[in-house]
Amino acid sequence: MAHRILVLGGDGYLGWPTALAFSARGDRVAILDNLAKRTWEAELDVAPLLPIGSLDERLSAWRHISGRDIEPIVGDLTDCDFVYDSLRTFRPDTIIHYGEQPSAPYSMIDARHAAFTQANNVIGTLNLLFAMRDVSPESHLVKLGTMGEYGTPDVDIEEGYLTVRHNGRSHTFLYPKTPGSMYHLSKVHDSHNIHFATRIWGLRATDLNQGVVYGIETDQTALDPRLATSFHYDEIFGTALNRFCVQAVAGTPITVYGRGGQTRGYLNLRDTVACVTLASDTPAEPGALRIFNQFTETFTVLELAERVCDAALHLGMPAQLEHHPNPRVEAEEHYYNPRHSALLELGLQPHLLSEELIDTMLDRIVAHRERIRLASLTMDIRWAPARVTD
Amino acid sequence: MAHRILVLGGDGYLGWPTALAFSARGDRVAILDNLAKRTWEAELDVAPLLPIGSLDERLSAWRHISGRDIEPIVGDLTDCDFVYDSLRTFRPDTIIHYGEQPSAPYSMIDARHAAFTQANNVIGTLNLLFAMRDVSPESHLVKLGTMGEYGTPDVDIEEGYLTVRHNGRSHTFLYPKTPGSMYHLSKVHDSHNIHFATRIWGLRATDLNQGVVYGIETDQTALDPRLATSFHYDEIFGTALNRFCVQAVAGTPITVYGRGGQTRGYLNLRDTVACVTLASDTPAEPGALRIFNQFTETFTVLELAERVCDAALHLGMPAQLEHHPNPRVEAEEHYYNPRHSALLELGLQPHLLSEELIDTMLDRIVAHRERIRLASLTMDIRWAPARVTD
Repeated sequence: MAHRILVLGGDGYLGWPTALAFSARGDRVAILDNLAKRTWEAELDVAPLLPIGSLDERLSAWRHISGRDIEPIVGDLTDCDFVYDSLRTFRPDTIIHYGEQPSAPYSMIDARHAAFTQANNVIGTLNLLFAMRDVSPESHLVKLGTMGEYGTPDVDIEEGYLTVRHNGRSHTFLYPKTPGSMYHLSKVHDSHNIHFATRIWGLRATDLNQGVVYGIETDQTALDPRLATSFHYDEIFGTALNRFCVQAVAGTPITVYGRGGQTRGYLNLRDTVACVTLASDTPAEPGALRIFNQFTETFTVLELAERVCDAALHLGMPAQLEHHPNPRVEAEEHYYNPRHSALLELGLQPHLLSEELIDTMLDRIVAHRERIRLASLTMDIRWAPARVTD
Repeated sequence: MAHRILVLGGDGYLGWPTALAFSARGDRVAILDNLAKRTWEAELDVAPLLPIGSLDERLSAWRHISGRDIEPIVGDLTDCDFVYDSLRTFRPDTIIHYGEQPSAPYSMIDARHAAFTQANNVIGTLNLLFAMRDVSPESHLVKLGTMGEYGTPDVDIEEGYLTVRHNGRSHTFLYPKTPGSMYHLSKVHDSHNIHFATRIWGLRATDLNQGVVYGIETDQTALDPRLATSFHYDEIFGTALNRFCVQAVAGTPITVYGRGGQTRGYLNLRDTVACVTLASDTPAEPGALRIFNQFTETFTVLELAERVCDAALHLGMPAQLEHHPNPRVEAEEHYYNPRHSALLELGLQPHLLSEELIDTMLDRIVAHRERIRLASLTMDIRWAPARVTD
């Protein structure tokens, strides 16, 4: 049965292939986006590697190629009336929420960028929760959180909740969070607000604490260049593996921050789409905030860089690693054991990282190497001003 | 030695007596306030019981009575430049932060009031943290949080942190929070942001998770009617005991929400001032977020109402209790065992609730009974719309 799927942030790196995937299988899809990412790109003079048309051009291309319509709804989640109107009009079964400022470095530029990130993300999601309560209480919210909410505690990271025995009694809490940037904090704030909306108002939600996504295409985006997703390699919006591949193709050193022992969870862009689909197809119960850790493998930054280096050398590119002073304030060696079994139990078939994927990515990047802006690769955004770290 | 004390929200119920107390002992005090509380009062047609002059009138009265100056700095914490300028100019040793929208019911009126509360509180504090980092990194932040951040878990509530043993390993987390309103959520968000600023930037901060404050005067406010603090009894800004006393004097029933088994921590207004003074006089170390639970006793709502009832009857007032449907969504019977030893160890001498205090409050209220607006006593702000709770 076709569902009504509203993809918030559907113009972005993850939102676009997600919208295409649901549309491809016959769901009725709308993309709600304020197109702000394009403004941030202009502000910081960065651009996606592959050419990206306007949202209308992308939707026309999809209509032409697939014969399917995706409805655009352009507006801002921080505009309360707009959010209420959008839910009232589209009546979504599922709301997939990527509609936030997604970059930790962007949030750490200065006070204004931090305040913008937290106000934008938290208030947008807050308006959404109130609108769900008042005009669409049956909708299932599928919200993209991040593994970065947890930080790197010295104990195992569970999927969202932690049962604590203390002084002879027991209680199950939201897993306590120790996030590492103003962006990651905004996601922690969201999680608390969503938890409240499920506890107090009986809404249904799934929070997907996602790892770092890599990859350049999905089954749908690969159909036509006009369906490409906005693959970033700059220091602001680019993720680790994607950046390393572009550095290798550009012939610049692959930059590892500090010792490179920082361990994180990673997943293929295709698995992001698969996980979100699985979560949508098995909605949370009313009153429940279900939380999944959404990644398939963990790597240290150094391991990732070495894999890209090996793949590049194998293709005849003269790649080399370089350790750079870490602009972030974070542990570079730490315990890390996060669980991630719930999505596997729902049926996820992971695309694990292989040299073959890196080869394919490198090939795709080589085809667009003339678009690589070297200045975007290192933009020197620091977690703490020099005075503070001295 | 005189310290430079900046009191954010120094025009309010707690901020004003705090500013007077520091000024009285010879510290150099400035009050930073946007005077927004006066706007919210006008918006909701509520007013403090005792007449309150303009900030300038209050400061003139204090100058006249004490011979001491308190400097007013009028502006908004959400204005980043203003916050930077204020810290740069005043150079505070201690920043005492009451400068937030303080009402849970206000935050639950609708989506707009919730969004305003979270944006106002979270972004104001965020700007403050960045300004401290960049222009005043030695200042000690004394931030007013709330016991309501914790909610009512089934295990003992520690002072800010919880050491968890899990799968054979151990980690000390921020104590996990389960707040009960959009206002309380804003304080949880603040706590996470402040924790980040101490961890990553090395700032020093004390978070005071305060219980419900009652009381009408301190040594300084009692000196002259022009020094009164803004005592609220309305459903928006009034706290439980204060409201009950006004209901008794007004001859209306003392309204207990639901069964009245809701247990909370309470403290006298005089002890708020004492706790904040103790925290200021023993600053947190750089890089540390120190957290105290700031209350002196716990009561159920029913116990409080009965105490007020007894005191009123003793004074010949015909008081009676009435159980009203609970407009909040909260447990009405629950385990509650929060620690509160840290401030006692710093030297706090609590003013415990006694019939004598309630008598004094009732007398003060009787003297102003003509100012009681009955409509303010029950304003019907619900945590969930009727449709949702049905």
